[in-house]
Amino acid sequence: MSNNILKLGIFGFGCVGQGLHNVLSQTKGINASIEKICIKHPDKERSLPASYFTTDPSDILDNADIDVVVELIDDAEAAYHIVKSALIKGKAVVSANKKLIAEHLEELLFLQSKYQTPLLYEGAVCGSIPIIRNLEEYYDNDLLNSVSGIFNGSTNYILSKMKNEGLDFEVALKEAQEKGFAESDPTLDVGGFDPKYKLCITLLHAFGLLVRPENILNIGIQNLNDQDVNYANQNKQKIKLIAHGQKQGQNISAFVLPTFINPDNPLINVHNEFNGILVESAFANQQFFGGKGAGSDPTGSAVLSDISALTYGYKYEYKKLHQTTVVTYSTQQLLEVYVRYNDKNAVQWTDFESINQSFESEDYNYVIGNIYLEQLLQEEWQLNDNISIVLKAIVEDSPNIVQEKTNNAVVETA
Amino acid sequence: MSNNILKLGIFGFGCVGQGLHNVLSQTKGINASIEKICIKHPDKERSLPASYFTTDPSDILDNADIDVVVELIDDAEAAYHIVKSALIKGKAVVSANKKLIAEHLEELLFLQSKYQTPLLYEGAVCGSIPIIRNLEEYYDNDLLNSVSGIFNGSTNYILSKMKNEGLDFEVALKEAQEKGFAESDPTLDVGGFDPKYKLCITLLHAFGLLVRPENILNIGIQNLNDQDVNYANQNKQKIKLIAHGQKQGQNISAFVLPTFINPDNPLINVHNEFNGILVESAFANQQFFGGKGAGSDPTGSAVLSDISALTYGYKYEYKKLHQTTVVTYSTQQLLEVYVRYNDKNAVQWTDFESINQSFESEDYNYVIGNIYLEQLLQEEWQLNDNISIVLKAIVEDSPNIVQEKTNNAVVETA
Ligand SMILES: NC(=O)c1ccc[n+]([C@@H]2O[C@H](COP(=O)([O-])OP(=O)(O)OC[C@H]3O[C@@H](n4cnc5c(N)ncnc54)[C@H](OP(=O)(O)O)[C@@H]3O)[C@@H](O)[C@H]2O)c1
Ligand SMILES: NC(=O)c1ccc[n+]([C@@H]2O[C@H](COP(=O)([O-])OP(=O)(O)OC[C@H]3O[C@@H](n4cnc5c(N)ncnc54)[C@H](OP(=O)(O)O)[C@@H]3O)[C@@H](O)[C@H]2O)c1
Repeated sequence: MSNNILKLGIFGFGCVGQGLHNVLSQTKGINASIEKICIKHPDKERSLPASYFTTDPSDILDNADIDVVVELIDDAEAAYHIVKSALIKGKAVVSANKKLIAEHLEELLFLQSKYQTPLLYEGAVCGSIPIIRNLEEYYDNDLLNSVSGIFNGSTNYILSKMKNEGLDFEVALKEAQEKGFAESDPTLDVGGFDPKYKLCITLLHAFGLLVRPENILNIGIQNLNDQDVNYANQNKQKIKLIAHGQKQGQNISAFVLPTFINPDNPLINVHNEFNGILVESAFANQQFFGGKGAGSDPTGSAVLSDISALTYGYKYEYKKLHQTTVVTYSTQQLLEVYVRYNDKNAVQWTDFESINQSFESEDYNYVIGNIYLEQLLQEEWQLNDNISIVLKAIVEDSPNIVQEKTNNAVVETA
Repeated sequence: MSNNILKLGIFGFGCVGQGLHNVLSQTKGINASIEKICIKHPDKERSLPASYFTTDPSDILDNADIDVVVELIDDAEAAYHIVKSALIKGKAVVSANKKLIAEHLEELLFLQSKYQTPLLYEGAVCGSIPIIRNLEEYYDNDLLNSVSGIFNGSTNYILSKMKNEGLDFEVALKEAQEKGFAESDPTLDVGGFDPKYKLCITLLHAFGLLVRPENILNIGIQNLNDQDVNYANQNKQKIKLIAHGQKQGQNISAFVLPTFINPDNPLINVHNEFNGILVESAFANQQFFGGKGAGSDPTGSAVLSDISALTYGYKYEYKKLHQTTVVTYSTQQLLEVYVRYNDKNAVQWTDFESINQSFESEDYNYVIGNIYLEQLLQEEWQLNDNISIVLKAIVEDSPNIVQEKTNNAVVETA
């Protein structure tokens, strides 16, 4: 794509679509103009002249004048068809739809390669924070150990309110919804699905790993209560919903879990709707990125940065996917978790490798125990409303991972 | 530069040079090999075979096999000649030398353009934090309002120790030197010169502004004492040495000043030798980058990332330098400062626009007053050992800047 004016066809004119329009119209020096906007409800009142709008996707997809399709709708299934057909028609695509991207990563890689047309999606992961671009470009030859962080603004807002104002989960959720942070179906946020989709995308750019969302554990924050918050307070910790991916040897483990965060961890200072990401590498040590994870203008501005990158011919190279050492996804990571429960029989105790502490009283019971990620991924008892799980620590030298490492080594030297 | 193996000629094998070697030798998949290392003292013991080393620059500069010159010496003047002649000979250059780069920015731009060869210097600004790359690539079309932060690890280490352990400045400095954070000539650090050089480079990539270091105010931390630290404590603030650049209309103001940092500012959590940068943009809101600002491996790893970028043909485009709206450097920014003094006559009170508060006692006197940046830049009274200056606030709507804006507007519409 040369340095000409890009002609944009936009799908969706909601929170992010309008943010993009706002940001674009106030930014000088970007060579892009909006040609058409495809929306769902033709009768909604709009802030732009009616001539911009259509409800017919082919007005964009079959318009030879349009170079770039910007997909900003809230329906992942419809978005999949739009993005796919745009790529097949050789149009560059920018999307902020983490669910669509995470669920179709392999096919989207294939389509980009087959039709030689780029797909950029910085806005899909942590809004305004340029994490994908940094993982792709800057950390390409560094030895990354882990990427973890607060990838979801709504849940962080809820947890901040529970901690700082003592609000109940339900009240805090309602507030987040009123402020427009939470999705209309809050399960995506509070159940940890949204950060999991983002983690999926991140794992590809950080480690060259392709893994399907359903193979990654996500435990949300919906079962947390003031007892859990108090327990954290006593240890000068905070509970945050953390998406975590880490590399040990060639093994990558990953999960989304409520986690006790220590006072010296920069993530403890990420408040309300902000996001934060910690990147640990062998040589650069720990690096921290923070910023607004969502919202109209911040996300619009990330989308605009992708559009701008297209004017310079930028595309993801997926360099780490092509590296010689192949990484494998592993759920053999041992975790130390805090489990609060009402009914002792509701927990499958045989799942645990060890119980390190236990506390019982009239109205508050918990244990601290070691359990394999694999076990948590297979079980369902932890979904019980009266059970909450919070990660205390990732057990170093997880026996099963060491096992795998040794096996690999044996195979390699054989 | 194609995807072949890059042949490196390195100048300097001290802290950063050895870090680079360490990082490079442990990183698979980077297509670069070290051909020759030019050092100063041939008799020093080295960790590599003698055949690597030379003291003759032409062994690198006139070696047609060498594609990339990596300049990592501690002598800015010698470095200038090395970098210049490498560029003239058409070799790509990577440097971590902020003094050299800041002092010769215009000429280095010209040489890169004339000889069509790239110069990269991510390691020169905030060590491992990829700020230049982000400003250059990611924030190119966003409306940046300001870039500010803790750009110097040694001074931040000293200030952290004064605050947390009540150490005196001299004791904390000695500790920083022992830990290897401080330069052998500590004036560069504690006088705020090092962060000023970094700020110079940052202003070019953030705003497209070229300004000479001597035109930027730098007040260091050498005069701060426990009274200043206590004053900050009382307000729940911390003193940090802040490099700051901001845009108002087409005017850019910039300075390096000890600054009271509020508890809600992410920079307050940047401890010891870490660096942190806040980027404020019109739409993406506030973004924060944190990480190790110095040290052997972290800086070596930033240098390696530049080398790796060369293998993909990366160069700085200096896009903002070519934007249509021209920015101007302005020192007409009004600042609210805290001034502690022993002798009332040592301060030039007529420099102030207003005195907002004053406190006198037997052994502690201070005023809070408004003063133009221009005034501080011209005067010398503030260098007096018994005077300390700490920024309280940047006065919004600085009258003289508004004046300039109006003038510009008149000229433009005339
Ligand atoms: N909101 C954020 O802060 C944020 C941050 C990062 C990423 N994202 C992602 O960005 C995307 C958009 O989010 P949003 O918050 O902007 O959603 P939204 O405010 O609910 O807006 C959705 C828009 O999509 C349109 N739409 C829905 N189905 C359509 C279809 N089949 N064809 C054409 N248009 C259709 C709607 O049309 P009508 O106007 O006619 O109803 C509406 O304009 C989602 O993937 C979301 O996950 C959002
Ligand atoms: N240290 C950090 O954390 C850090 C971080 C960011 C940027 N930087 C920058 O990186 C550069 C190097 O810093 P450093 O800490 O690595 O310095 P250093 O430890 O003092 O090492 C300096 C090296 O330069 C060599 N040298 C000096 N003059 C030379 C000349 N004329 N020709 C050839 N070699 C010469 C020295 O040779 P001998 O070994 O023979 O004495 C030594 O190997 C400086 O520009 C510094 O500002 C440093």
